[in-house]
Amino acid sequence: MQKKTIIALDAMSGDQGLRIVVPAAIRMLKKYTHLHLILVGDQKLLSDYVQTFKRFDKNRLSIYHASEVVAMDEKPSVALRSKKDSSMRISINLVKQKRAQACVSAGNTGALMATARFVLKTLPGINRPAIITSLPADNKLKRVRMLDLGANVDSSAVTLMQFAIMGSVLTSAIDNIKHPKIALLNIGEEAIKGNEQVKKTTELLLKHPSLNYVGYIEGDRILNSNVDVIVADGFVGNVALKTIEGLAHFIAKLIKKTFKQNIMTHIAALFSIFVLKSLKKQMNPDRYNGATLIGLRGIVIKSHGNTSVEGFGYAIETAIAEVAHNVPQLIEKEVTKLLRRAK
Amino acid sequence: MQKKTIIALDAMSGDQGLRIVVPAAIRMLKKYTHLHLILVGDQKLLSDYVQTFKRFDKNRLSIYHASEVVAMDEKPSVALRSKKDSSMRISINLVKQKRAQACVSAGNTGALMATARFVLKTLPGINRPAIITSLPADNKLKRVRMLDLGANVDSSAVTLMQFAIMGSVLTSAIDNIKHPKIALLNIGEEAIKGNEQVKKTTELLLKHPSLNYVGYIEGDRILNSNVDVIVADGFVGNVALKTIEGLAHFIAKLIKKTFKQNIMTHIAALFSIFVLKSLKKQMNPDRYNGATLIGLRGIVIKSHGNTSVEGFGYAIETAIAEVAHNVPQLIEKEVTKLLRRAK
Repeated sequence: MQKKTIIALDAMSGDQGLRIVVPAAIRMLKKYTHLHLILVGDQKLLSDYVQTFKRFDKNRLSIYHASEVVAMDEKPSVALRSKKDSSMRISINLVKQKRAQACVSAGNTGALMATARFVLKTLPGINRPAIITSLPADNKLKRVRMLDLGANVDSSAVTLMQFAIMGSVLTSAIDNIKHPKIALLNIGEEAIKGNEQVKKTTELLLKHPSLNYVGYIEGDRILNSNVDVIVADGFVGNVALKTIEGLAHFIAKLIKKTFKQNIMTHIAALFSIFVLKSLKKQMNPDRYNGATLIGLRGIVIKSHGNTSVEGFGYAIETAIAEVAHNVPQLIEKEVTKLLRRAK
Repeated sequence: MQKKTIIALDAMSGDQGLRIVVPAAIRMLKKYTHLHLILVGDQKLLSDYVQTFKRFDKNRLSIYHASEVVAMDEKPSVALRSKKDSSMRISINLVKQKRAQACVSAGNTGALMATARFVLKTLPGINRPAIITSLPADNKLKRVRMLDLGANVDSSAVTLMQFAIMGSVLTSAIDNIKHPKIALLNIGEEAIKGNEQVKKTTELLLKHPSLNYVGYIEGDRILNSNVDVIVADGFVGNVALKTIEGLAHFIAKLIKKTFKQNIMTHIAALFSIFVLKSLKKQMNPDRYNGATLIGLRGIVIKSHGNTSVEGFGYAIETAIAEVAHNVPQLIEKEVTKLLRRAK
């Protein structure tokens, strides 16, 4: 029997709040029999809504009351100071108190990061937490992970090196890869190119023989390379990630429009309906939902604000996997080992 | 009758050199009767190849001999120092000597930028040249222009402001837009987000009432916004551009693969052949070929290294449009005006 896993869900955040979180929670409870979930939010609203669902193990679902909600556009500093009974804050508190092994929120990224950092603190030896997610990879079945996606801008080379270590440990544990290949996002593959930040980071990474650093990678190879982890400053990583999201959306619209041009293209669409459905499924960003706030003394997963029930389920699964491998402990061990060696 | 336009073409650079440049040149000579082209490169090879083409106005095509070629992977500093008779260098020299009003090269970007900057110099009041190109825009017929795409990293706020001015002048002239909307690429639309570089730049831009600065834009809106010019540091702009190229390629492969899964999807592809062709055409990067090295005392257009005949033709058309509007002179005028006002 698998070990009991308890995850707190911020049930009120995200564009649709409990309408997405509750059905996703029930779906996951059915799928994983070792899973226990705590819905954090308005007790009355949640219990009324939960009662509309049948045939799931009620013993593995509990509700924890929180009277406030952090708005999607709320300033992180305001959320941190004035929303102490928010569903987001309480979910993170439950992780801090060890009453949950992880939490998942579809709330405002800035507020989630600020609160998680304040409540949980960073791991020893880690300057700053980062945001990491997996992306589809072109030429194989596996995914590629990229960090930082916007938690930090103007990161120092030391911080970027720590990101590389954290990304490597996470990928190694979750994907069972012994020495994940790490690359640094840059604007040219030759050593002379790049900004100061990247040049200094590559020097540091080359000094760590325990890291499988393979060099630079350019933007056009993010989804098409043989590397496992891509490291970038949060500014650059965020622009790249959002550019991918924007273009995927752009092309999906283009395909739709092209198939709706005239009667002939409508007929073509009818004949292609299964192909188009398959394409839509493959291009669906929900499949890659669930980014990790990495570098904290606890597991915090960020779901997209406008995800679907299926997408929020993937975010819960990300939490389950990180709990199973105890990723924060693994990172702490690796960083301690590297720091000891550096002395 | 339109004024005579003379453009020098680096006929030896790019992945396929003259095999692309010469047919594109002849196609453009047929299309534009005021156009005169100078093919720069190996006299013998070029004249032999030109002779295989019929039915074009030979009086408007000349060959200028250059004995060397800059390799696609040659270091810019080496090209600049040791390849003084390269087709790239000679093409730029012809612009300097006013024997051509613009030049187009599909060669190595770094070498082209270094050589152009050395030979032509930057415009008065401009610190550094930048690379600007147009991209498809989602919700309307017009395009959006983005700069810098990799000429400069770690740009100062003043440099980024100059990029905004140059982008605005070019867009205004070519697209006939009175006050182009300018946005700064950032990781959040709120004023508190962003790195130091972006925060300082926004302050400067807000001080210039003659610029139509509309604020921040995130990566997901590069192709889907109502702005005309997007300004970014060359590191970030290059990552965004390459990410777009990589993902477009990724999705094109995905579509192809999905339509080739089994006999049913093959049949769907047959029924959709016109739709797929139209999609391919719309997603074809050649349509957006031709980036401008902006901020120089002369017009230099960079074509993609692996473009098609059609794509190189678009790059020549970019040069024709910039000659017609005399973009460098317009930029100089605007910068002088702003500098005078600042005093």
